[in-house]
Amino acid sequence: MTHAVLAELLDIRYPIIQAPMAGGTTTAALIAAVSEAGGLGSLGAGYLGAPAIAEAAAQVRRLTERAFAINLFVPGPCQRNAERVAAANRVLDEFRATLGIARPDSVEPIAPDFEAQLEAALAVEPRAISTTFGALPADTVTAIRRRGIRVIGTATTVAEARHLAGTGVDAIVAQGFEAGGHRGSFLTAHEHSEVGLMALVPQMVDAVAPPVIASGAIMDGRGIAAAHMLGAAGVQMGSAFLACEESGAKPVHKQALPGALDTDTCVTRVFSGKPARGLYNRFMDGFAEHDTALPDYPEHNAWTKDVRAAAGTQGEPGFMSLWAGQAAGLARCEPAAVLMGRLIDEARAQIPELY
Amino acid sequence: MTHAVLAELLDIRYPIIQAPMAGGTTTAALIAAVSEAGGLGSLGAGYLGAPAIAEAAAQVRRLTERAFAINLFVPGPCQRNAERVAAANRVLDEFRATLGIARPDSVEPIAPDFEAQLEAALAVEPRAISTTFGALPADTVTAIRRRGIRVIGTATTVAEARHLAGTGVDAIVAQGFEAGGHRGSFLTAHEHSEVGLMALVPQMVDAVAPPVIASGAIMDGRGIAAAHMLGAAGVQMGSAFLACEESGAKPVHKQALPGALDTDTCVTRVFSGKPARGLYNRFMDGFAEHDTALPDYPEHNAWTKDVRAAAGTQGEPGFMSLWAGQAAGLARCEPAAVLMGRLIDEARAQIPELY
Repeated sequence: MTHAVLAELLDIRYPIIQAPMAGGTTTAALIAAVSEAGGLGSLGAGYLGAPAIAEAAAQVRRLTERAFAINLFVPGPCQRNAERVAAANRVLDEFRATLGIARPDSVEPIAPDFEAQLEAALAVEPRAISTTFGALPADTVTAIRRRGIRVIGTATTVAEARHLAGTGVDAIVAQGFEAGGHRGSFLTAHEHSEVGLMALVPQMVDAVAPPVIASGAIMDGRGIAAAHMLGAAGVQMGSAFLACEESGAKPVHKQALPGALDTDTCVTRVFSGKPARGLYNRFMDGFAEHDTALPDYPEHNAWTKDVRAAAGTQGEPGFMSLWAGQAAGLARCEPAAVLMGRLIDEARAQIPELY
Repeated sequence: MTHAVLAELLDIRYPIIQAPMAGGTTTAALIAAVSEAGGLGSLGAGYLGAPAIAEAAAQVRRLTERAFAINLFVPGPCQRNAERVAAANRVLDEFRATLGIARPDSVEPIAPDFEAQLEAALAVEPRAISTTFGALPADTVTAIRRRGIRVIGTATTVAEARHLAGTGVDAIVAQGFEAGGHRGSFLTAHEHSEVGLMALVPQMVDAVAPPVIASGAIMDGRGIAAAHMLGAAGVQMGSAFLACEESGAKPVHKQALPGALDTDTCVTRVFSGKPARGLYNRFMDGFAEHDTALPDYPEHNAWTKDVRAAAGTQGEPGFMSLWAGQAAGLARCEPAAVLMGRLIDEARAQIPELY
């Protein structure tokens, strides 16, 4: 009964985790609504500095006393590359011209200080710290766990899951190739880690001891029940919560999900420098035409920021990063509590012994 | 109770279809063992001429009176291209040198006559004709069904499934991106139809009326139960049956599956000219290094045949097409009846109302 194990581990009633979508999507209202409904809300704090993490978490605490998670990006190497920045800016300048904005003189291509982020997150005493883009050192995992806080890693392959298990994490998110947003891959090049969830979950469950949380294209009770049958202890869902009323995603982004086709997304590095799945749009097309070698994250992410921000303000989906999984078309724009209620009802109908 | 619908439609006890793996894998012994165990064996007849289909089907009939299927390739356009053939042969000649064989003077890059194949298949009166790489015209589907034979189409996207449903097929295989062997894509470029099974099945079930058969990375009862939860009426399994004792796959191919990693496969056009998923090997690496624009199927397939055949004879997996899905590592080399018994027991344990 791995479902009960995960629920107890995370101090929640239903093993449904709202995915930590960084960049403003995971508002306090969204996190609190999910946690109040018996799931686990997650603050996507990867882009936030320590003070912003403290503030965002305090907002959550004002809305709920229930368990929630804070997600951080494990820092990786960034090779600065002026030539690639110049080439990328030639493409971005075409977008800027369309949007009527000027190229910034300079940008700050620096990820927030991870140690400070982690300290700020731990100070809030969330139920769990989840991580993406890598594995924390084993002694860091131990230190977090000693404070009574659970650690959840993210893996896109069995090898990554084995590595995370070796660091002592409490649970592992299996991120299938179907999933929207950034790929968590860290041991294998993305091109060699395109493993679909149906293949990933049973092989990961066989390989590692910690409970596995299935993620990717899970949008309703069917996906929750299927993940359970594959051996997962719970699910993490992004697109479904992104479309919710409380999510901080731009209205044009939310509206683009319901009814999207299964073939409307692809994985691309053009927005941030790291591979991520989103809806096809002009931004992707523009870079594809130029076939530009891209700067690394976070340098590329910093240079695309003004374009994405202006597009969001102007309601122009062609130049936004419209993160979406391969089943995002099943999303509905509704309150998160309504979504949670439906998920629980549907899961109960299919696997009544667990919901 | 869509499982019962599919079982009745195909006159089988359990909605488990042994995938039609063309090229000699689907021996009469394999097909008969699956059908005798209550599933649906399938003859992969795409590469066979009419007389060979008649002979292969007669062999099956000698071993079982139960239902089986014959699979055909829906013919597509082939643009002959001497320049691409020459470039491909420069790569292939390196492989030939390693294998100690000479380049053939000429090859017959012609697919078997489809009308003759279909007549030969219909004459055998199989329970079903399944098709890959396209949709039969609606009047052909009607003509087949008038003879009491079911028609099963293959779709890699919801759009392809809608198209197949419009031709009047009885059931549709949803081929997930995880699946081993050739991609059935026919309406959308392969690069834009990389939909994982977890995303594909529920969206296809919502979109079309015929029962949907899930395919891709299903290796055990967990996959069967998960497919059912997603709304599938049954499953089609390739890698699991390819590894069986009765399969005609080369011993080195069978032996390469158990224990393969989730990341050991990729989709490539280098073997046949059409995208297909198999285990990484030197054949793929060799073409990747040269970044050659490949001839179309069947021209490219004809020119690679001598290399693949010699590699098979010599037991050299580096130059064979080692088709495998993303969960092929879960395969076991065992009799097909043992596999079927295990699948049924495992499925019964997870979804007892159906098995």
